[in-house]
Amino acid sequence: MADETIAGGDEESPGLSRRGFFLGAGGLAASGLIVGGAAGAAGGFALARATGSETAATADIVYPYFDQAHQGGIQTEPQKYSVLMTYDLTASSRGEVQVLLARWTAAIAQMTKGQPIGNPAPPGPEAVAQDSGEALDLGAQGLTVTVGLGPGLFDSRFGLASKKPGLLKQLPHLPSDQLQKEFTGGDLCLSACADDPQVAYHAIRNLSRMARGTATTRWTVTGFGRASAGPSQQTPRNLLGFKDGTRNIVSDADFDRWVWLKNQRQSWMNGGTYLVARKIHQNIETWDTDRISDQEQVFGRTKLEGAPLTGHGEFDAPDFSKKSAAGDPIIPATSHVALAAHENNGGIKIHRRSYNYTEGIDGVGQIDAGLLFVAFMNDPDHFIRLQTKLGSSDRLNEYIKHIGSALFAVPRGPRTGSYIAAELFD
Amino acid sequence: MADETIAGGDEESPGLSRRGFFLGAGGLAASGLIVGGAAGAAGGFALARATGSETAATADIVYPYFDQAHQGGIQTEPQKYSVLMTYDLTASSRGEVQVLLARWTAAIAQMTKGQPIGNPAPPGPEAVAQDSGEALDLGAQGLTVTVGLGPGLFDSRFGLASKKPGLLKQLPHLPSDQLQKEFTGGDLCLSACADDPQVAYHAIRNLSRMARGTATTRWTVTGFGRASAGPSQQTPRNLLGFKDGTRNIVSDADFDRWVWLKNQRQSWMNGGTYLVARKIHQNIETWDTDRISDQEQVFGRTKLEGAPLTGHGEFDAPDFSKKSAAGDPIIPATSHVALAAHENNGGIKIHRRSYNYTEGIDGVGQIDAGLLFVAFMNDPDHFIRLQTKLGSSDRLNEYIKHIGSALFAVPRGPRTGSYIAAELFD
Repeated sequence: MADETIAGGDEESPGLSRRGFFLGAGGLAASGLIVGGAAGAAGGFALARATGSETAATADIVYPYFDQAHQGGIQTEPQKYSVLMTYDLTASSRGEVQVLLARWTAAIAQMTKGQPIGNPAPPGPEAVAQDSGEALDLGAQGLTVTVGLGPGLFDSRFGLASKKPGLLKQLPHLPSDQLQKEFTGGDLCLSACADDPQVAYHAIRNLSRMARGTATTRWTVTGFGRASAGPSQQTPRNLLGFKDGTRNIVSDADFDRWVWLKNQRQSWMNGGTYLVARKIHQNIETWDTDRISDQEQVFGRTKLEGAPLTGHGEFDAPDFSKKSAAGDPIIPATSHVALAAHENNGGIKIHRRSYNYTEGIDGVGQIDAGLLFVAFMNDPDHFIRLQTKLGSSDRLNEYIKHIGSALFAVPRGPRTGSYIAAELFD
Repeated sequence: MADETIAGGDEESPGLSRRGFFLGAGGLAASGLIVGGAAGAAGGFALARATGSETAATADIVYPYFDQAHQGGIQTEPQKYSVLMTYDLTASSRGEVQVLLARWTAAIAQMTKGQPIGNPAPPGPEAVAQDSGEALDLGAQGLTVTVGLGPGLFDSRFGLASKKPGLLKQLPHLPSDQLQKEFTGGDLCLSACADDPQVAYHAIRNLSRMARGTATTRWTVTGFGRASAGPSQQTPRNLLGFKDGTRNIVSDADFDRWVWLKNQRQSWMNGGTYLVARKIHQNIETWDTDRISDQEQVFGRTKLEGAPLTGHGEFDAPDFSKKSAAGDPIIPATSHVALAAHENNGGIKIHRRSYNYTEGIDGVGQIDAGLLFVAFMNDPDHFIRLQTKLGSSDRLNEYIKHIGSALFAVPRGPRTGSYIAAELFD
C-alpha cells in the first residue's frame, strides 16, 4: 500500500479528496483489514472556514502532519491549551487497533489543517455528521495531536509483545506518590494542543467518538494555561505563581541528545520518544499562606523575576556552590531547582510541556487546581531518577501531590500513504 | 467619604497608590467599618507587566471600573473565557459583608487594570503575598468581574430584608429541571470574564481567598469558549455544533428596554439588573448520533450557516408562519428558535452571555460537557416564562438537562470613593 493514500498529506482542498480517502481505506482492506465506518456512507461537513477577527492571530497556524520525522506536540512551540485523554482498549484483535490508528491518522490530518473530519462530500439531509461541528469556524489554531501507546498494547491481547519498546513499562512507585487509580495508566493516549481550547476539545471529542467499540475513555485533564515555554516564548507561570520551564530543553541538540530515539532494537520506534504524564494537585490555598521568602527557598528562585537565588536575571545560571556568610548554600540543596538541575543529576535533561488545570471545588471548599505535568524523554529512567530525588526531598512536596501518572511510547510521525505506528504492525 | 478613594479609579501607575488605598480604607473605617486585612501589613506585588507577544492582542484591553452606570461583564463584548463562582455567606454581621464587598471592589479595580491586588509597596521578605502571582505577566485581558447578590443576603441574618430587590427570589421549579443541589443557589456570585483563562481564574482565586471567614465557595463553572456574541463578533458555536446567540440583544435600546433597572422602589438597584445562571448538561454523544436534518429541526436553523429554516442567511428573520406543501410550519413550532423567539413570547428578550464547559469524563465514560447559560434581564419572570415554554416543549430537551440554577441581583457599578452595592447599606 506504499503508493496509496489514507489521508493525503499534500491536499490543500477543504477536505481529504474522496479518492485519496477511499484508496486509503481500500489499501487497508487489501491488507486484510476491515475499515468499517472510516470511509462509510455517513456524511461529513466540508466547509470553508470563516475566521472571527478575534482569533485571526492564531487561526491560521497550521503544522504539517505527514512525513515529519517526529510527531507534533513535542518540539512544537507549546500552544496555549491542551486536552490529554487516555484510553483502555476493548478491541479483541490487532486489526481493530490498526483501524483505529488509521482512522485517527486521517482525522488528525484533517483537523490539524483546520478542516472538519470525514468525507468531504456535502452531507445528505439524512446523514449523521461525522464532525461534531463546534470548531467549524475556528481554524487550525496550531493544533497538534500526539498519539501515545501504553504498556497494555503490548500485553497478550494483541500479539505485539515482541514489538514492545525496550523501556516501556509501568512507572514504579515513586517517593511521595499519592496516586488515585482513576488517574493512572492507559493503553493509548492522545494529547491535543492548540491555541484555542475549543479546537483541542473538538479534536479529543471526535477522536474519542471514533474509538467507540475499540477503546473507552480512561482519564483526562484539560489544561488552560501552558506552563512551559518554547524557544521564542516568554516563560509562563504555574498556579503557584512562579515561572515554570525557564531551563526547559529547547535546542535541536538537546532534543537530539535527550528526547529522540534512534538506533532502537525496535526500529519502528526510531524518531519517537517516551511521554510521561503526571497529574499534580497543588494545595494552592495552603501555598498562598506561605511567606514569599519561604516560597522562594522552596523553588530556589525569586518569585517576581524567576532568577536563581544566586543571580539577578531569570536566565542566569544557578550557582549551587555559592554559600551565605553562615556557610549555607544560597540555593537550598532541597529546593526544587537544585534537586532537578542537570548539574546535580549527571547531566540529565527532560523536555517538559506542562499545562495548568483547575477542576472546580474540592471536598473542603477549596479551588481544585494543579499542573498537568507532561514530559518527553528518550529514557523514562531519566524521569524516574529525577522524581525519586524530588519525591524524597523536594520542599515543594509540602504543597503538591502526584495523583495521576502514566507512561506512553510515542512513535515517529506518520508517512504519507500510511498511518501512525504502521511499522509496529509490519 | 465622597472625596476619598478605596481604589482610585484614575490611577495609571503600576499599582494603586499607597495613599489612595489607605485613604480608602480609612474612609471605610471612618464609616464605622473595620477593614481588617484589606490595607493590612501583608505585602503585595506591584509589578510592571511584561506581555508575551502571544497575548499582546488582548493583554492591553482594559475596561474602566469605577463610575460606570453599569457593572462590566454584562453589555461588555463577551470575552473568550469565564469563571463563575457562587458563595454562601458565613458572616454573622452586616458589617462583615460590607467589608468583603469593599475589599472585592478594591481588588477588582486593580485586577481589571492588569495589576496585582494588594498593597503596592514591594513586599518584605517575610511578607505573605496578597496576590497569588500567576497572572503577573498576562495583562488585563479585558477582565471584568460582575458581582451578584443572592436571595440569602436578604434573609434574617443581616437585617437587609427591607432592602430586598422586588423581583429577587429563588427561581421556581421549571419544567424539565433536573437540578442537582450542589449546583444551585448562592448568597453571592462573581462572574469573571477575560480573554485569557488564567486571568479569569486568578481573579476568582484571589477574590475567594479574600472571602475566607466571610463566605465559602458553593459551586463553580469554568467556561472555555464563549457561546454568545457581542455586536462586532462572529457568532460562536456551542458544543452541539450550532451557532448560538444569533438573535442576542446587542443594541443600547434593547439593553435599556430589557436589561437595565430604573425607577426601582429599591433605588439602590437602579442601573442594575438580574443574572440567571444555569448549568446545562449536554448529552453530546447522543446528540452526535442524530441526523443533521433532525438536529436542524430541533434548532429550527441550519447547522452550517445558522440560517432559519425559512431563510438563507444567518441573520434572516425567521418566518414562523411559512408552511411546507404539506401544510406544516417549516420552522417546527417545537423547535428551539420558535419557542424562544420574541415574536412568539409577547416581545420578551433577554441578554444571553453563555460559555461552553467541559468537566472530564462522566460516570459512563462519556465526555462531560455542556453550557454555562448566563443571562441578564430586568425581570426574572422573562426567563421563567421562556424556560417554562422551552422546558415543556423544546425538542432540544431530549439532549440537554438543566442541572444547576441560581438567580442574583446585580447592582450598578461602584462610584469612585465607594464600593459595590454601597447604597444597599445606607
